[in-house]
Amino acid sequence: MEKTKIENVESWLSKEQARFISEVIGLDSSIIKHDDSWKKGSENFGRTVVLSDGNIFEKIAVNFSSISGDSLPEAASAKRPDLAGSAFRAMGLSIVSHPRNPFVPTAHQNLRLFSALGEEKSNWWFGGGYDLTPYFGFIEDSINWHRSAKKVCAAYGVNTYENFKEQCDAYFNVKHRKEQRGIGGLFFDDLNYWTFEKCFNFLKDVGKAFSSSYFEIVKKRKETAYTKEHRDFQQYRRGRYVEFNLVHDRGTLFGLQFGGRINSILASLPPTVTWPYEPSENLKKYESDLLTEFLTPKDWLSENL
Amino acid sequence: MEKTKIENVESWLSKEQARFISEVIGLDSSIIKHDDSWKKGSENFGRTVVLSDGNIFEKIAVNFSSISGDSLPEAASAKRPDLAGSAFRAMGLSIVSHPRNPFVPTAHQNLRLFSALGEEKSNWWFGGGYDLTPYFGFIEDSINWHRSAKKVCAAYGVNTYENFKEQCDAYFNVKHRKEQRGIGGLFFDDLNYWTFEKCFNFLKDVGKAFSSSYFEIVKKRKETAYTKEHRDFQQYRRGRYVEFNLVHDRGTLFGLQFGGRINSILASLPPTVTWPYEPSENLKKYESDLLTEFLTPKDWLSENL
Repeated sequence: MEKTKIENVESWLSKEQARFISEVIGLDSSIIKHDDSWKKGSENFGRTVVLSDGNIFEKIAVNFSSISGDSLPEAASAKRPDLAGSAFRAMGLSIVSHPRNPFVPTAHQNLRLFSALGEEKSNWWFGGGYDLTPYFGFIEDSINWHRSAKKVCAAYGVNTYENFKEQCDAYFNVKHRKEQRGIGGLFFDDLNYWTFEKCFNFLKDVGKAFSSSYFEIVKKRKETAYTKEHRDFQQYRRGRYVEFNLVHDRGTLFGLQFGGRINSILASLPPTVTWPYEPSENLKKYESDLLTEFLTPKDWLSENL
Repeated sequence: MEKTKIENVESWLSKEQARFISEVIGLDSSIIKHDDSWKKGSENFGRTVVLSDGNIFEKIAVNFSSISGDSLPEAASAKRPDLAGSAFRAMGLSIVSHPRNPFVPTAHQNLRLFSALGEEKSNWWFGGGYDLTPYFGFIEDSINWHRSAKKVCAAYGVNTYENFKEQCDAYFNVKHRKEQRGIGGLFFDDLNYWTFEKCFNFLKDVGKAFSSSYFEIVKKRKETAYTKEHRDFQQYRRGRYVEFNLVHDRGTLFGLQFGGRINSILASLPPTVTWPYEPSENLKKYESDLLTEFLTPKDWLSENL
């Protein structure tokens, strides 16, 4: 694969990171910025920016990294086990936002490029997507979220939204709890069946759609009044996020297997979490509503909603 | 393997659970008791007791379970991969204590019996042990903890303490952080090289030693004055406990693979946890002291300490 192609993606991911950070600071000017650029050898580098203790956002991790490795870990590609063990180059931008107000959902985005270094033409693939994890859901927001996801896919062929939406529901499943992590969105991996340029354009469009859809919800919900119980519920449900990331998430497992910068890999964990054995009756009620109405895969764009 | 032998262990584990619970309530009388007995089919049952919101203890999980399965998961035995897939019976008592005062350490104990149902005589093995996770360590307490562990092993042959102590250090290692989880103690698995009776007696002695050593430390440290920063440090370091349990712990992975009662398997998680990206300077100082002096495997019974 041509070096310039890789460098173009690298440079765009890095700019996209800066753009997202500026938008957050624009919304939440008193937020504290931790900005760590790191380098390991000549071929591994990254920039981890964590914005914390803002009025709106309690902790947002915006993580860019670009690494080379001698041996592709199994977790890197489910569909290409034949490539496990190859030398590779991988780069990605990962964003996880934990807002303070329990009526504002947690959101996640990942955009990445893998390239197994070899002769074959198809040894590159893009992956990524975005998904939303509400604590108290809003049907209107969920519909808008999925409408925007469908819009971004429209230029990329029939069923692209349906396909990536379904993959998202399948991936963000907290198996041991038999629960969805959230209301989904888009998830794609091993994306190399379009031209490189088309795949890369898709990545760019996904990045743009994510921030505009998410900030729209943030602005709409950030002033919602909440009680201690609402906040308790958010702390409790954040536990599910930790469970998913540490037990099931391929990106986290890849990082831990690869032995990357641990503070960057785990920067996505929520700032504060609780694991009560027995949630209060109110919390159980909130949970049952959330699970039934939002954390069950559904067609958010159906007429019947 | 004779049915009565299994039933004797089952009955003792269950009594040991009740004894431990009484001791906790004796020490911390206002603690709230959640007591859930459960049954799944005719061959899977357990009792999960979680004591929470006490003056001394924030959350203690005391978990007994006895289960049968058609196919032994790989996580059940590292040394007997040949038995993966066999029908089996497994039972265990697992205790994790999260005290409120950051000067009182977190403690863990596990006592278990596995039996692969087949013809071979040696298809049973005991496992378990105990370990201690201080936030602010005390050399005196660490020495007493290991002295008591050595004492319990003394009747079971030369080097039994050294062997199980070394296995404990090897097991309770938070690999992705390159840190020990605590100051260790005892860890044994695949224990069947003594007679069944001798192994079972060892289990009983380990159970007794755990509670007496731990409660001695609890009584000594429970009134220690602490600041918000000490407490913050405890919340932060509890994150490591979660990381170990969800990423590395074989017992947890076994439970998740087996699809057991999820609230029981994860009852051991701390009640409240934080993941700050950048701990404060004081927290970093506490951490560096803890890592250097306590969370590095050492011979706690050496004369030179």
